[in-house]
Amino acid sequence: MHLSSQALLSLHGFNSDRVSPTLSFPSFSGLKSHSSCKAFTASPRRRVVSTTVRAAAAVETLDQTTEVSLVEKSINTIRFLSIDAVEKANSGHPGLPMGCAPMGHILYDEVMRYNPKNPFWFNRDRFILSAGHGCMLQYALLHLAGYDSVLEEDLKSFRQWGSKTPGHPENFETVGVEVTTGPLGQGIANAVGLALAEKHLAARFNKPDNEIVDHYTYVILGDGCQMEGISNEACSLAGHWGLGKLIAFYDDNHISIDGDTEIAFTESVDQRFEALGWHVIWVKNGNTGYDDIRAAIKEAKAVKDKPTLIKVTTTIGYGSPNKANSYSVHGSALGAKEVDATRKNLGWPFEPFHVPEDVKKHWSRHVPAGAGLEAEWNAKFAEYEKKYKEEAAELKAIISGEFPAGWEKALPTYTPESPADATRNLSQQCLNALVKVLPGLLGGSADLASSNMTLLKSYGDFQKNTPEERNVRFGVREHGMGAICNGIALHSPGFIPYCATFFVFTDYMRAAIRISALCEAGVIYVMTHDSIGLGEDGPTHQPIEHLASFRAMPNILMLRPADGNETAGAYKVAVLNRKRPSILALSRQKLAQLPGTSIEGVEKGGYIISDNSSGNKPDVILIGTGSELEIAAAAAEDLRKEGKAVRVVSFVSWELFDEQSDQYKESVLPASVSARVSIEAGSTFGWGKIVGSQGKAIGIDRFGASAPAGRIYKEFGITKEAVIAAAKEVS
Amino acid sequence: MHLSSQALLSLHGFNSDRVSPTLSFPSFSGLKSHSSCKAFTASPRRRVVSTTVRAAAAVETLDQTTEVSLVEKSINTIRFLSIDAVEKANSGHPGLPMGCAPMGHILYDEVMRYNPKNPFWFNRDRFILSAGHGCMLQYALLHLAGYDSVLEEDLKSFRQWGSKTPGHPENFETVGVEVTTGPLGQGIANAVGLALAEKHLAARFNKPDNEIVDHYTYVILGDGCQMEGISNEACSLAGHWGLGKLIAFYDDNHISIDGDTEIAFTESVDQRFEALGWHVIWVKNGNTGYDDIRAAIKEAKAVKDKPTLIKVTTTIGYGSPNKANSYSVHGSALGAKEVDATRKNLGWPFEPFHVPEDVKKHWSRHVPAGAGLEAEWNAKFAEYEKKYKEEAAELKAIISGEFPAGWEKALPTYTPESPADATRNLSQQCLNALVKVLPGLLGGSADLASSNMTLLKSYGDFQKNTPEERNVRFGVREHGMGAICNGIALHSPGFIPYCATFFVFTDYMRAAIRISALCEAGVIYVMTHDSIGLGEDGPTHQPIEHLASFRAMPNILMLRPADGNETAGAYKVAVLNRKRPSILALSRQKLAQLPGTSIEGVEKGGYIISDNSSGNKPDVILIGTGSELEIAAAAAEDLRKEGKAVRVVSFVSWELFDEQSDQYKESVLPASVSARVSIEAGSTFGWGKIVGSQGKAIGIDRFGASAPAGRIYKEFGITKEAVIAAAKEVS
Repeated sequence: MHLSSQALLSLHGFNSDRVSPTLSFPSFSGLKSHSSCKAFTASPRRRVVSTTVRAAAAVETLDQTTEVSLVEKSINTIRFLSIDAVEKANSGHPGLPMGCAPMGHILYDEVMRYNPKNPFWFNRDRFILSAGHGCMLQYALLHLAGYDSVLEEDLKSFRQWGSKTPGHPENFETVGVEVTTGPLGQGIANAVGLALAEKHLAARFNKPDNEIVDHYTYVILGDGCQMEGISNEACSLAGHWGLGKLIAFYDDNHISIDGDTEIAFTESVDQRFEALGWHVIWVKNGNTGYDDIRAAIKEAKAVKDKPTLIKVTTTIGYGSPNKANSYSVHGSALGAKEVDATRKNLGWPFEPFHVPEDVKKHWSRHVPAGAGLEAEWNAKFAEYEKKYKEEAAELKAIISGEFPAGWEKALPTYTPESPADATRNLSQQCLNALVKVLPGLLGGSADLASSNMTLLKSYGDFQKNTPEERNVRFGVREHGMGAICNGIALHSPGFIPYCATFFVFTDYMRAAIRISALCEAGVIYVMTHDSIGLGEDGPTHQPIEHLASFRAMPNILMLRPADGNETAGAYKVAVLNRKRPSILALSRQKLAQLPGTSIEGVEKGGYIISDNSSGNKPDVILIGTGSELEIAAAAAEDLRKEGKAVRVVSFVSWELFDEQSDQYKESVLPASVSARVSIEAGSTFGWGKIVGSQGKAIGIDRFGASAPAGRIYKEFGITKEAVIAAAKEVS
Repeated sequence: MHLSSQALLSLHGFNSDRVSPTLSFPSFSGLKSHSSCKAFTASPRRRVVSTTVRAAAAVETLDQTTEVSLVEKSINTIRFLSIDAVEKANSGHPGLPMGCAPMGHILYDEVMRYNPKNPFWFNRDRFILSAGHGCMLQYALLHLAGYDSVLEEDLKSFRQWGSKTPGHPENFETVGVEVTTGPLGQGIANAVGLALAEKHLAARFNKPDNEIVDHYTYVILGDGCQMEGISNEACSLAGHWGLGKLIAFYDDNHISIDGDTEIAFTESVDQRFEALGWHVIWVKNGNTGYDDIRAAIKEAKAVKDKPTLIKVTTTIGYGSPNKANSYSVHGSALGAKEVDATRKNLGWPFEPFHVPEDVKKHWSRHVPAGAGLEAEWNAKFAEYEKKYKEEAAELKAIISGEFPAGWEKALPTYTPESPADATRNLSQQCLNALVKVLPGLLGGSADLASSNMTLLKSYGDFQKNTPEERNVRFGVREHGMGAICNGIALHSPGFIPYCATFFVFTDYMRAAIRISALCEAGVIYVMTHDSIGLGEDGPTHQPIEHLASFRAMPNILMLRPADGNETAGAYKVAVLNRKRPSILALSRQKLAQLPGTSIEGVEKGGYIISDNSSGNKPDVILIGTGSELEIAAAAAEDLRKEGKAVRVVSFVSWELFDEQSDQYKESVLPASVSARVSIEAGSTFGWGKIVGSQGKAIGIDRFGASAPAGRIYKEFGITKEAVIAAAKEVS
């Protein structure tokens, strides 16, 4: 397998026009040799701070020495690139970049290992700006580090239509950005997923003589992230799992949008993180205490069995004489006058967007250094591949996202004679079949594994001391679970994370699911107990509006399979769609295996499962999804006995059906047939478009009830009789 | 004002057939006198535990002494009522009630102050079972305490169709249940809201000589609640606010559905709560350490400036010889064999659902005692009313939910000449106008007060030391915010809590919003930045599918006003709808004040704002909502210049329109006019039903983008030109 950087870029959906064609990229395979890196020479020394950046890494460490004056000049460059971009856009958040520039500089210039010309190099350190509003910090750093995705023109078009520098970091817009942040708390949870992925792969693939997987995950999060419940969920898991290579910088600046954090946030964050099992370090002077930041990182790396929170006390808007340390610098441009004052205050004589030559020169070493790091790793991988052929193939599949040929043949199929079963159970059969052929499949449930039926029987639990295993126990933390899975998915293209809870509890994790859709993370959401069919638990547990709510969400597949073949089809679709998440709505209750269902049908979203009409002119079309498809089928049988020409359509995924040709759509739902009845145990919202003004949508437009499922179906009129009556009414 | 218990029941939506007509209820006003309570006599003493239940309350304390053997018999009654009900239903969660029966007994029998025959007595202690799956615990306690809502027949119809004992506690089904729980973590956050409400009212209305507001809020939460992020959000606020009268029992049983909590939950809960500013007590033997539980409650009450977490270590399924302390007892019936074994093990010779006579007799005192407590309070209120007339009137309004006549006249109105403004600003004008006439209006934002425009200018911040104020600072905790508001709303019918964030972040709080809708809490959700119109922040911040997702949700009003009059109308509707929540989607950007808009129009959900057609036969109907209504109006003007007969309809609330008469609906959207164009800067999902198969829905079925708003509108085709083109196409 040969994956060039361009190929990787294109795999990630980017066109390669931003990849300088004159540069020779290290290929994934390591078969090409690269000139050895000469970039480690230090700048001329005057007052020099020596920082050993990688204490005991698997590969050679970067030993970095830089003059303090140059460090400060670099930090001020970051500050002013941010100030200038926000000023030009007259929109954005200058406060965080100004306060966090020191830690940003140290991370990207001294600590992190990456290859600017191949931002997808597998073994790179990951950086997540969880406080995504401060994205100019990251854009400035990517620019200085030599990423082609953020050129000067991009900084100048910050927050403009079509730019590579949107208002919050978006991995699908800006190469070098790992995940999509902005909604607070998501980034730190993504980072937990990235660190989980690293720990898992390291445990699974590293050998005593070759630690082929070995990187850190760094995060900057702010007060806002800390207040969000999702961060507590994810950080509790990070502590539980002992993710030692997760290092989070907490930008402790005491200011949020509404003012001093004193008004709403007086808890002891340090103590809470200690309670969560983290190592906690406090850097009291994050504004100029460069050595303290460096020492904290060194200490964090030395603690291998716990994640580390480095609380860095900073001044928001540092350098602005009149706005620093106030909420006014959080989310608005400084204004020309204050920009001038800040330039004077920090002794910055340069014009907007200027990067001083010495700063430019200093940072320029990252291009060859990064190429060297990747080359070194490629050589190491070549060694690994020679010695550990099988493991190397698996790891490659995870890195590249290429599935073994014919993987889909592992999916089970069923006949109408196969025993009736709940689709949650059929889902488990699929998961256990797929895990044998998909090395990147792993996941679990939010404390409902035995209800969601998500356990991989041939694997144990991913835990602190068994991270090579593939059953992840998320606890009752749906929101954190979703965001962690986003992180896993975005770690490497071959990861296929799945996660599970009751369908109704997608409400708890909706913000993370939306980010899956937006950031193109192909997470599989295994959502069981998908209707009133769950029975006695009652309306708090019975989804009603959820199908509609996800059908309205962009770039996500909402799948509601009706039986075994459709469940297998749903998994086929979900696995193939690596750039959009899939939600599988699955039944708690047993469902018959229906004649006419198929994997191929599911791939079309909507298809005919039975029909006794001719000439594409049925008297009536009955449309069902999931557990109600068998009701539609039973109603059709009765109607046919009465001489009606009835078509039954399974409408398993509206999105997929929508993507079919007009011709195909007409063959399933001919425009001339207005006699249509849909049945689905959920909100009828949206069905109007499918059944048309002459048709009838049978559904539930109220909350559910606590009773045995059969009784609720009957009381709510989700019955064969109702379908027959409606069919007669409309046809 | 005279509010009988029946009136209160009916106010709460219950019919009074469960209120024994022979009993004379203490009225709210305290004008009726009641026989003094004689129920404080102790049972015959043998081995007696004396527990002072209320150390320093404003009214006389209950001093309780009960034989240990009777205590244990009562506790076992609770256990077996739970076991038997789950067994009969063959569905439910026996484990928690068996483990928590001791704390349940002590709370309801010895500690809490309530009136079983008037469960809505204002000054009652509130109890929330945050671990709602264990609802049989609460049903058993309500039954023993003499609530008419849970009779023996109700216990026997646990989880059956139409019963008063659904699968999780539902305030709208079972009188005596304060809130609706089941979705984990919600209950503890509701409890924070209830305790906030008490602290606020106490600070606002109590006088040195008359502490008319004075009750505790008790919660039982389990490991599941603890893992959910929402509980950390709410508990961080509870600590910040110093809610000293909030006492939470953490059922520390080490078991969740997936097994031992060791697999996913190893943080130190004690330390975390200390970090959050709580007082923490550990009762090591929650199974039989009755005195320890009592002592813990006493200690908790003595700590007045902090909420208290009492960690009670229990055995899940206590008493079951083969299933206790295992996940198998969490969520399934024990099975006949194990029920027998448990009966033997705990020495329980009785038939199912039996309450031993001495237990019955012991609990029977709560009916007269409760009546006495209420009578005492009523007398106290009469005193209060004499001395503090104005305050008494305000407090009454909050207790009764009766608004001052003509309150709606306070709402501002606008003319087309009024300056263009963002509906978020117009919303602030409404809030500040309403707060002068609605004593129960209070609320705030999740750290976006200055963006959501939610500050009440005549009030300060509700804080630990200024709890009488009405601006609540929730911090960046949307989910907790929603659930806290549910608690406030359900504390007293006159509370009108509002809360705010960006509309897209309803995703963070959707589970709480759904509970608002389900539990009939009339929370007002002030959701600003409601479309791509927010501009540069980009797709993470731009709602697309959100309008559709709430239109599909039962019992909630989704309102998207277009200008000042419509914003005022939206508030009128929201305030009047005390039994369903309202979401107001408001613009960041300025909008023109449109001719033809009105408060009355909003009340109808959809209405004509301009029309040059006659005979209810326009050539085309243009339908808009919110910020796009002015685009529809502008398009209509152009089309009319070309000679078209054009009707413009504001479709501000689909739900309200749906509730109008067929005649009215026909007058707005005549069936004969199929030429319809809708425009809304959001998903077109659902619009198909409104515009019909001949019409056209202009909207956005992709994620947004980061750029100035005007540019995005243009690029996405949300323009006058697009409406005109579509109108020509369809007409």
